[in-house]
This record gives sequence, structure tokens and C-alpha cells, in this order.
Amino acid sequence: MKIYDVEGFPNPARVRIALAEKGATDKFEFIPVDFMGGEHRREEFLKKNPSAGVPVMELECGTCIAECTAITEYIDHSFEGPNLTGRNPKERAVIHMMNRRAEAGLLDAVGAYFHHATPGLGPDLETHQNSEWGQSQKMRAQSTMAYLNDVLAEQDYLAGAEFSMADITAFAGLAFADFSKVDIPLYLNHLNAWRARVAARPSCGG
Amino acid sequence: MKIYDVEGFPNPARVRIALAEKGATDKFEFIPVDFMGGEHRREEFLKKNPSAGVPVMELECGTCIAECTAITEYIDHSFEGPNLTGRNPKERAVIHMMNRRAEAGLLDAVGAYFHHATPGLGPDLETHQNSEWGQSQKMRAQSTMAYLNDVLAEQDYLAGAEFSMADITAFAGLAFADFSKVDIPLYLNHLNAWRARVAARPSCGG
Repeated sequence: MKIYDVEGFPNPARVRIALAEKGATDKFEFIPVDFMGGEHRREEFLKKNPSAGVPVMELECGTCIAECTAITEYIDHSFEGPNLTGRNPKERAVIHMMNRRAEAGLLDAVGAYFHHATPGLGPDLETHQNSEWGQSQKMRAQSTMAYLNDVLAEQDYLAGAEFSMADITAFAGLAFADFSKVDIPLYLNHLNAWRARVAARPSCGG
Repeated sequence: MKIYDVEGFPNPARVRIALAEKGATDKFEFIPVDFMGGEHRREEFLKKNPSAGVPVMELECGTCIAECTAITEYIDHSFEGPNLTGRNPKERAVIHMMNRRAEAGLLDAVGAYFHHATPGLGPDLETHQNSEWGQSQKMRAQSTMAYLNDVLAEQDYLAGAEFSMADITAFAGLAFADFSKVDIPLYLNHLNAWRARVAARPSCGG
């Protein structure tokens, strides 16, 4: 099986962490996409993912799976190792809810700031910028950080006592915030302690 | 169990359809939220869903689940009836991928147009409008309609041969498009035929 991605990009990091948690990284061939050269907008790549994003997982049957939550569902249900998406209806619901909050409120919000209110990937790729929208999404990202801090005051991980897909998404979101120079306030001590705890996992580079 | 929602709103419709598919509607008490009166922004509701959106599902243990995909995961794994989220890793991945495309590219995009580029819910509730952003998201919604039409040229439903969560999301997205006066072109004949097929299901009012 193959994964088309860009090493170091936020969404590819989510899938790489999920694979490492499952000990399944070596089941995949990683194929770099020349994002800066616009490869993701060319016809051959759009056949794999019409949304033009990375990562894309290509199964042995040729089916291409995009969108990190979908890819993580595939990984979690295909390989042994720690559970990432929940073992019963309530766990599944809480993990998907927190994953969505971390994705929309943090990772995607930081992405909107980066692509709309900073030079982003440069003028060749950032052809439709809306600075006011980007700034509003930066505020949303910082508001989400404060919310996640409150959640982590009560429990060790975003969906409860165990590490899950939601933690992976938020961890990638904070890395993207650092990269985009969106401040992660030091006084959010529960969030920062959680981040250090997650960063210490072997799957997250620890 | 309880569902806090607003009858006729797009996201609440997704959960109501999922429950009807499972024959589980009568397991829930539906509690209307006074959205126009701003109830969703008051402290009591924000404790249930800090994102201030509907629907919210409250389980018997008191846990509140927000975000339609999360709620649908709960419903699909809790009740008998047709499968909505997939029975194996590949089905789960394809359904979540198509659900996400329908959500981000159609339903949420129409929502951004409605809330940012039209009077939306009125000046008391629409306090941060960005018309240019709304217009760009209208274009995204129409581009997604064309993409979904291409998908439906090849198969009966968005994730393959069977109705799934992805169809529910897109169906709610088209209803929101109608409501927001975002044109659904007649020449997208596969999309329109699929819509009529879905509308004929008892869960969708047919």
C-alpha cells in the first residue's frame, strides 16, 4: 500500500503518528508529492484526491482514501495495537466529537490563518487569500486552545483517560500553530503538559 | 436519551434521518432549542456544547455528544437496521471520506455562504460576517455538486452501492442549498436523480 504525502506537513503527520502507534509504518511505501511545484493540482494527483490535499492512502485494490479521519479509521480497524477510534458506541462518539473539535477549531483554523493571513505557501499557490477570514480563524484557534486546556484540566487525554485520534489531531494542530507563529499561551498549563506527554510517545518523536 | 435541536435545520436533519433509518427515533426525547432567541449561546447550553451548535445528543449517563458524524457513529453502533458507517475498514474509510467531502465541500460551504454573504439568521446572531468568504464558499459548494454528480455517474450512492452517512450529509447539504438559494444546476442529472431517490426513502420524508 502507498501513502502520498509531504513529510512535515500537518495532516500527513496525523497519519504517520497513527501508523506508528499501530506499528504499521513499514506496511506502506511513502511517495513524496511535490506540493511546492504544484503536483497536487495536476490531473494525475486529482484523480487520487479531487480535493488536492495530502495525505492520500492508496490501497492494494487501487482505491484511494483521502481525509485524515477516514484514513485513521482504516488504519485503526486494519492493524493491531492501541485503539485510536473507540471500542464501543460512546467511546466512538466522544473520540469523533473531540477529533472534530480539534480539527475544525484548531488544525483547520490555523491552516486558514496560515493560508489566508500570512504569505502561506507563496504567491503561486495562495491565489485566493482573505486576510480578514484568516485573522478570525486565528482567534478561533486560540479560543479552541483555551477550551482544550479546560478539557485537559479534568482528564489526561482529549477523549478521556486514553490517547486517541483526537489527541493526534490536536497535537498536529499545535505543531502547525508553532510553524505559523500562532502563540500557544504558556498559562494554558494543562494543554502544555498534555503536549509534552504526547510528544514523549515514540510515535510522536519522543 | 435526549436530542436538543431545531427542527428543519440542516445538521439536526442529518441526525433525524439516521435515527429514522435505524427505527430508533422513539428512543429519544426531542427538546427544541430557541436558536433565534440566542439560547444556544447561553451558559446552560454551552455546557452541553461549547461550540454552540445543534444537534446535541445527551446520553442517559449525562454525557453530551455534539458533531453529527460523532452522533451518527453512536447511532449506527447502538441500534439495529441498515448500516450507515461501514462494516469493514475499507467501507468505513470510503464512507468517512465521502461524508467529509459532502460536509466540508457542500453543507458547511453552503452554511458559510448563508451566514456570511446573506442576512443569515439576522443581525443579532450574524455578528461577524465576511461576504467575500461567503461568496467563495458558494463557489466551493457548486464545485462540490459537480464533483458529487461525477461520482454518482458511476455508482448509486456516494460511497458505493449502498446508502450511507455520506448520502445523509449531502442530502442535508442540498436542502440547505435550496433554502439559501444556492442554485443546484438541473444539468447535474446524476446528482438530481440521486436526490430524488434519497428523498423517496421514508427516513427522508418520502
